[in-house]
Amino acid sequence: MSQLNPIKVGLLGFGVVGSGTWNVLTRNAEEIARRAGRQIEIVRIATRTTSKATAVVGNAVPVSDDMLSVVNDPNVEVVVELIGGTTLAKELVLKAIENGKHVVTANKALLAVHGNEIFKAASERQVTVAFEAAVAGGIPIIKAMREGLTANRIQWLAGIINGTTNFILTEMREKGLSFAEVLKKAQQLGYAEADPTFDVEGVDAAHKLTLLASIAFGIPVQFDKVYVEGISRLAPEDVVAAGRLGYRIKLLGLAIRRDSGIELRVHPCLVPNSKLIASVEGPMNAVVVKGDAVGETLYYGAGAGSEPTASAVVADLVDVTRLLTADPEHRVPPLAFQANALADYPILPIEEVTSSYYLRLHVEDRPGVMAEIATILAKGNISINSMIQDPETNGASIIFLIHQAREGNVLEAIKQIERLSFVQSKVTMIRLEELS
Amino acid sequence: MSQLNPIKVGLLGFGVVGSGTWNVLTRNAEEIARRAGRQIEIVRIATRTTSKATAVVGNAVPVSDDMLSVVNDPNVEVVVELIGGTTLAKELVLKAIENGKHVVTANKALLAVHGNEIFKAASERQVTVAFEAAVAGGIPIIKAMREGLTANRIQWLAGIINGTTNFILTEMREKGLSFAEVLKKAQQLGYAEADPTFDVEGVDAAHKLTLLASIAFGIPVQFDKVYVEGISRLAPEDVVAAGRLGYRIKLLGLAIRRDSGIELRVHPCLVPNSKLIASVEGPMNAVVVKGDAVGETLYYGAGAGSEPTASAVVADLVDVTRLLTADPEHRVPPLAFQANALADYPILPIEEVTSSYYLRLHVEDRPGVMAEIATILAKGNISINSMIQDPETNGASIIFLIHQAREGNVLEAIKQIERLSFVQSKVTMIRLEELS
Repeated sequence: MSQLNPIKVGLLGFGVVGSGTWNVLTRNAEEIARRAGRQIEIVRIATRTTSKATAVVGNAVPVSDDMLSVVNDPNVEVVVELIGGTTLAKELVLKAIENGKHVVTANKALLAVHGNEIFKAASERQVTVAFEAAVAGGIPIIKAMREGLTANRIQWLAGIINGTTNFILTEMREKGLSFAEVLKKAQQLGYAEADPTFDVEGVDAAHKLTLLASIAFGIPVQFDKVYVEGISRLAPEDVVAAGRLGYRIKLLGLAIRRDSGIELRVHPCLVPNSKLIASVEGPMNAVVVKGDAVGETLYYGAGAGSEPTASAVVADLVDVTRLLTADPEHRVPPLAFQANALADYPILPIEEVTSSYYLRLHVEDRPGVMAEIATILAKGNISINSMIQDPETNGASIIFLIHQAREGNVLEAIKQIERLSFVQSKVTMIRLEELS
Repeated sequence: MSQLNPIKVGLLGFGVVGSGTWNVLTRNAEEIARRAGRQIEIVRIATRTTSKATAVVGNAVPVSDDMLSVVNDPNVEVVVELIGGTTLAKELVLKAIENGKHVVTANKALLAVHGNEIFKAASERQVTVAFEAAVAGGIPIIKAMREGLTANRIQWLAGIINGTTNFILTEMREKGLSFAEVLKKAQQLGYAEADPTFDVEGVDAAHKLTLLASIAFGIPVQFDKVYVEGISRLAPEDVVAAGRLGYRIKLLGLAIRRDSGIELRVHPCLVPNSKLIASVEGPMNAVVVKGDAVGETLYYGAGAGSEPTASAVVADLVDVTRLLTADPEHRVPPLAFQANALADYPILPIEEVTSSYYLRLHVEDRPGVMAEIATILAKGNISINSMIQDPETNGASIIFLIHQAREGNVLEAIKQIERLSFVQSKVTMIRLEELS
């Protein structure tokens, strides 16, 4: 498609997110290039244990344990930092910037603590530091706030931005267990680390809140001024009492603009059941942003994990690619994909659609009714998931739930059913989607 | 701040969204310039009834009823099309493009029907056509899909993308009313037009789905291939039956990738209560996008209205501004606001924070207890919203809900309460946020 050279990426770290980034870039290479207008190519990898990386990438890309060699490679245009921590990572990121390379990072701790210094260096060298993956995994919340809500004076934001604690709170509520009991389970499932302090005491959420607040209000990062309280002291009886009062307890990151200044706080919080964010359960994340023009918007998705986080890393890489490609034709295209890369997939007629279905019909209540209907459905290759007789109509109203059938078959079956003598009305058909 | 000239905008249409755009750009001018790096200035307005616009903008900007004069003004860099319809709007947008101007539009019908022609013209003239406001009002869903999810092969998307029909369905369910009854109410409240056909028969949702699907899969816009079915024939008994089975009925726009092609359909649909999108009620919109890397993400907010839609129009204007400002320093800055425009708002210490509170304490059950506690709270200027004795503890456990108090006062009151002889434990304090 594109005649331009690939963008050359150096990858630091090949753990959960690093390997996810490799997998996504490899698997979706064609789709990503159709959007970015150029290939995105990992040309070097550095990681502490090279054997793991080599097992995945084979000989396709040189793998080394020398991080600096990647950052100093004149061939590398973008450095992706996925090693975590705030010492070596800081050194490498600053060196990459000094060498004029753009940086993509998922490192919230690094930016929450050293962000002002790093952003200043990047500004002076006129390179980008992108960090969508640092907050709420694959949810494009940084982009939404930085670009999508630019019209607004942001009044407040509230986020469930730590999946471990949200999983623990969900389990405490649903199963009536104590914090300690659920923590043990979360550790077994891999939702909590062996040393869970950073998550359960709210430090990780505070790192993310620091970044969100800076973007919301246009203030420097100030991690040391965030009030932080975790969930380890929450008693099950408060979880129960909150439920009786119409609330759920969530660990929220809150950034609120007041006349006198900005509130930055992470702590457990009662949230009314009626708010959508109260229904965000398990390890999922969500952020509500209140702007003066747009009102409340909410962004929801997986806040961690290999490929969800990689999704954000790669989105940043595409942003940088579009930026580096001066040709206006390769900026963000109106239909997301480059104009010369649109596909001609056929749009299926409704008869060829696959869906689940809800069918309701009125019948005379006599023997054999079900057998005849079931036979018609079976002939159409339509399997019944469940059948419910409406108790309020003495069995005369029957509902079928049908899972995953070809619509053409369902329409034909309905026609035949409506011809049966004991069927007393048209069949009501409504499609059903499990969305999973 | 910035020494650059303002970006000069010509506005076509001064109805609900046009006036909202003026209001937001005027009210938030300083905040927007801190983000965009330049002022954004409306320099000309054209509208059919000029008197309404003049009443708002006064002499600040020339107002005319000659739309072409705006599109042909060499001074105008960006044309914002907010007149709607597909004939005059098409002519004006194509003329603006021909004149080398960037275009921002909220016109879903125009793009769903004539998008391919318009995008081609824009590509040839190397100008931008931005349309965040055309889908789901102020929710930055176009940006999320076009830029935030670029790593993903999109598998499907499902959207509540018409507020009128979602309001009607919510009322039918909550109040057990018929479609016709609720429609009348929606018309009185201004949630439905006098002629509601476009909304209730699914046409508006189909326009938006057309655009979302193009961006999701990289296919041309193909409005004529969308299967469309509205909500006017939905019976209240199906709404009730769906509820009993654990589902809600929503009008969904669905775009699904199958091996054989793409499904594009708008119709009423049963959705499991357990999915977050089932809880999207009233006139609100939400879109779920399923990507192969990120999994499901959801975007929620107001899908229509003056300032929510203006929020998206202005976001597009900021995008164009950042694009036109070649200086790399004025591209999207890492912290959303230009580096030289960060503010030094103070971060408030926790004692100065304002919140609502949940307090739980154990007391001896004897007369005077409540009076003493209430006196301490009153002295701290803390008003009790409600007091609940836990029935399972024979009244020994008391919960207070306290609304909006200064945290310092609450902490001081707790100290005093814990000193009372009849208080038998530490006070459990959890903050409570109504998020409204």
